[in-house]
Amino acid sequence: MSPSHILSAYDEDLKYLNRRISEMGGLAEQMCADAVRALVTSDGGLAQRVISDDVILDSAEREVQEKAIVTIARRQPVAADLREIIGTLRIAADLERVGDLGKNTAKRVIAVQGTGVPRKLARGLEHLSELALVQLKEVLDVFANPSAQKAEAIRLRDEEIDAIYTSLFRELLTYMMEDPRNITTCTHLLFCAKNIERIGDHATNIAETIYYIATGSQPEGERPKDDTSNTLGSISE
Amino acid sequence: MSPSHILSAYDEDLKYLNRRISEMGGLAEQMCADAVRALVTSDGGLAQRVISDDVILDSAEREVQEKAIVTIARRQPVAADLREIIGTLRIAADLERVGDLGKNTAKRVIAVQGTGVPRKLARGLEHLSELALVQLKEVLDVFANPSAQKAEAIRLRDEEIDAIYTSLFRELLTYMMEDPRNITTCTHLLFCAKNIERIGDHATNIAETIYYIATGSQPEGERPKDDTSNTLGSISE
Repeated sequence: MSPSHILSAYDEDLKYLNRRISEMGGLAEQMCADAVRALVTSDGGLAQRVISDDVILDSAEREVQEKAIVTIARRQPVAADLREIIGTLRIAADLERVGDLGKNTAKRVIAVQGTGVPRKLARGLEHLSELALVQLKEVLDVFANPSAQKAEAIRLRDEEIDAIYTSLFRELLTYMMEDPRNITTCTHLLFCAKNIERIGDHATNIAETIYYIATGSQPEGERPKDDTSNTLGSISE
Repeated sequence: MSPSHILSAYDEDLKYLNRRISEMGGLAEQMCADAVRALVTSDGGLAQRVISDDVILDSAEREVQEKAIVTIARRQPVAADLREIIGTLRIAADLERVGDLGKNTAKRVIAVQGTGVPRKLARGLEHLSELALVQLKEVLDVFANPSAQKAEAIRLRDEEIDAIYTSLFRELLTYMMEDPRNITTCTHLLFCAKNIERIGDHATNIAETIYYIATGSQPEGERPKDDTSNTLGSISE
């Protein structure tokens, strides 16, 4: 085989992997958006679809892993090329986990169907979800057209999601304190909010992986702080 | 270089990676055990140590990734050897996340220090944590002495942890309903319980990776169900 032939076969493999990552990203986004919609509209059928879609995402991740291993074994890439394939594996794992978060949110639709989701909380969850999904979408766009600088910018933006999550956390506690009958539903909504906030974390992970693929090093400095709800001892302050 | 020399250099690299995984596993276990102890004894100093230890685990994961990439590039392993190195990357990522869960639990120590953790709930959390950490320890032992059969057995045992988590979830909801002043603390404990339950999930992931390394295929059948707390609409049943 001539070097150009080898290069082109390798490029084909890489293109295939990148296309599968884009598809996984699209499905993970859809699942999370649908899960939140199912939650706020009490749509059990939609929730069920999200739950069954997760199988597709799981098998896509396994397929990406298989393809990556075969590509490494056949093409024996080194340096930046090898980093790219290893990075692809990491991104596939993050997207598979985003799908799990959508599935977990969808599973809670049944638990809150009895009471429904109060309008104000529904709006809070939708807002959080929109921000997290925009961040995921943007980071996948950067994956398709890599730029270390753009990846770094997305990584630093996770703070906004954390702030909204923390305020939603406070609000949910207030609802629970006002009326104990809200406790079960609000507990499930707390976990849903946490699921959505974690989508943002995975988008941040993906941004770090893109940065790593492009530069060969980790982004400088600490990543943005976790949400501050962890240390909220009182909600009256 | 003679083939035996190449083999031995590769073996050395692999041994190094495996040692780093064991060290990561030991630290992750310690962090999670300490986080739960800090939680039930309101030990802020211990919690702080867990939080700062997480940096060590993060940098160990990056180091494993670097070493794995260099090993692949230099030794160009294929088939089972390549699978083993890719598997090592996955396991390092799972262990890094276990450390994150310990850190998240430790961060909540401050939030519950005001009220402390009721004895019965403390025992529930400790029991859950012991089970999850035994599972993690056992799966790391199987990693050190690989056996697809043992890996499969651990993978199926996750159900026990899920059952205890679900019962703890119910108990926490009951505490909240009994007295609204318990709500903030119990909410944090809910997240701590979920963190511990997720350690079990990561142990299951690691078991699946070991199975994959040993056999080249994924374990048969669905993995054990998620905890059933997701769909608990009422705790009075």
